[in-house]
Amino acid sequence: MYREKIKVLDCTIRDGGLINNHDFDSRFVRQVYRAVSEAKVDYMEIGYRNSKKLFSPKEYGLWKFCDDEEIEKIIEGIESETKISIMVDIGRVDMEDVRPKKESPVDMIRVASYVKDIDKAIYMVNEFSDKGYETTINIMAISRDQGSELDEAIHQIEEESKVDVVYIVDSFGALYQEPVEHLVKKFKEVMKTREVGFHGHNHQQLAFGNTIEAIIHGANYLDGTVYGIGRAAGNCPLELLVGFLKNPKFDIRPILDLISQEFIPLRDKIEWGYIIPYAIAGMMNEHPKAAMALRKSDKKEDYREFYERLVNYGFGEV
Amino acid sequence: MYREKIKVLDCTIRDGGLINNHDFDSRFVRQVYRAVSEAKVDYMEIGYRNSKKLFSPKEYGLWKFCDDEEIEKIIEGIESETKISIMVDIGRVDMEDVRPKKESPVDMIRVASYVKDIDKAIYMVNEFSDKGYETTINIMAISRDQGSELDEAIHQIEEESKVDVVYIVDSFGALYQEPVEHLVKKFKEVMKTREVGFHGHNHQQLAFGNTIEAIIHGANYLDGTVYGIGRAAGNCPLELLVGFLKNPKFDIRPILDLISQEFIPLRDKIEWGYIIPYAIAGMMNEHPKAAMALRKSDKKEDYREFYERLVNYGFGEV
Repeated sequence: MYREKIKVLDCTIRDGGLINNHDFDSRFVRQVYRAVSEAKVDYMEIGYRNSKKLFSPKEYGLWKFCDDEEIEKIIEGIESETKISIMVDIGRVDMEDVRPKKESPVDMIRVASYVKDIDKAIYMVNEFSDKGYETTINIMAISRDQGSELDEAIHQIEEESKVDVVYIVDSFGALYQEPVEHLVKKFKEVMKTREVGFHGHNHQQLAFGNTIEAIIHGANYLDGTVYGIGRAAGNCPLELLVGFLKNPKFDIRPILDLISQEFIPLRDKIEWGYIIPYAIAGMMNEHPKAAMALRKSDKKEDYREFYERLVNYGFGEV
Repeated sequence: MYREKIKVLDCTIRDGGLINNHDFDSRFVRQVYRAVSEAKVDYMEIGYRNSKKLFSPKEYGLWKFCDDEEIEKIIEGIESETKISIMVDIGRVDMEDVRPKKESPVDMIRVASYVKDIDKAIYMVNEFSDKGYETTINIMAISRDQGSELDEAIHQIEEESKVDVVYIVDSFGALYQEPVEHLVKKFKEVMKTREVGFHGHNHQQLAFGNTIEAIIHGANYLDGTVYGIGRAAGNCPLELLVGFLKNPKFDIRPILDLISQEFIPLRDKIEWGYIIPYAIAGMMNEHPKAAMALRKSDKKEDYREFYERLVNYGFGEV
């Protein structure tokens, strides 16, 4: 028996873009769009909408900006019921860059926010909601912010925002099942009129398991990426999630083809997945930034030294 | 707060041996023994004790047979509190090859058994127990055998055997959290005088998550392998397990060194880990044999075809 309310969001290009400056070529992005459409995935998130006053289009690929016109080129001519999502970061988007929904190919806008920025996030989702978009707030780095400030933030979201879905985002890949259960239950208890989402990171190989845990306790919006691509260790593999869900509408085969044809060769060029320094960062509930720097150095396999630096000096000194 | 009764068993050489005909050289095995000893891992399982009448020492490495004399050479001169374990398969061991414990470097013997062979397993553990060994029964492929025959088997183990620990073995990497919870609770309910163990396989990236789930519900014997080495997708990574457990006696650093120095180069020579055909086998609750054959063929990345063959014909025809 399946839960019809469950929605799967593919964020391959958006989270994968964090490891290649959002510079996927249009052919590749169309292949992903075609496959997730055929697989009947509910949403595809294609990138960030960032201000070109803050970031130069010379330094980043198209999916750092996600112009409506560029999205139109990707989806043109491909039959699809998959909705398009974009993400915005607080303080990095020009609100006037977001047209009313009826003039845009975008269906959903997700606001990534730390707990401390929740007032800004509420302001933004309310604006986007008034423009006609579905909206989410994705509460990042939640493994660091599980105390009274989080409680206050989710009460405020319930009382003041027009948001549809609130995501638990395990940015550091530090959560295991018990905290996931605790957070989903808390979110559902406090925000009775909203859906709960889960976005895992795979530093400790727990992204898929934690996503299942979130489903068990009532989360209905679930993120995955093809072959688990994403920053550092990556995300919950979309193919495992689709294989697990019982809704007969999903078809895993287009995703299998996509991995065979595109992601196996891609993995030889850019790195993600189970790599020890990311696992160490996850165990220590730290941002993977230091581990990512290590992987680009000539000490990429010096795990003990990395571990000891993190234990002795913490993230700041690395 | 940690649970003192929790014991960690490293089965790197034993389960890893399934992908190289048990042919690790003695230098490598000593390095593993040294590292897990320094890490204060409770047990190290070094291989199988198989009859030389059934398998030729010309075709297999030393750890298919695990002669006491060969084990002595490995542990000699290395300071250690880590106990030595060997595994036996039903019908493949000459019982007279097992000397009394006081004449052997082995501390524990684990009997791998399907549910249908449980009478034989009970006979064997009782013999080994009488010879002075700690014993376990490892119930394999349990994702296929969760019905009344399993219930009968565990009642029988409780009533007739001298075994210390009974393991849930997810041979196909098909379990997720809810079945793990259900099985651990059932085992503890029926076998009140035995410890429960868990041995995961990582086909769907759930080995570590499921091990945590087993811990939550009371399993105290936990298997892992260095860098997750093992047949097909491999096992629960020992480094993640040691990083998770709170007992201050454990030291992850020797394991990190071992991965840097030995397992990164080894992974270039032999294959294990997250590989799509193994994930497909896990989703379908099938033995990974067909997927292992595929990986040795020129169709190793033809996932869709493999998936469709499995859907249409099942494991037998592949």
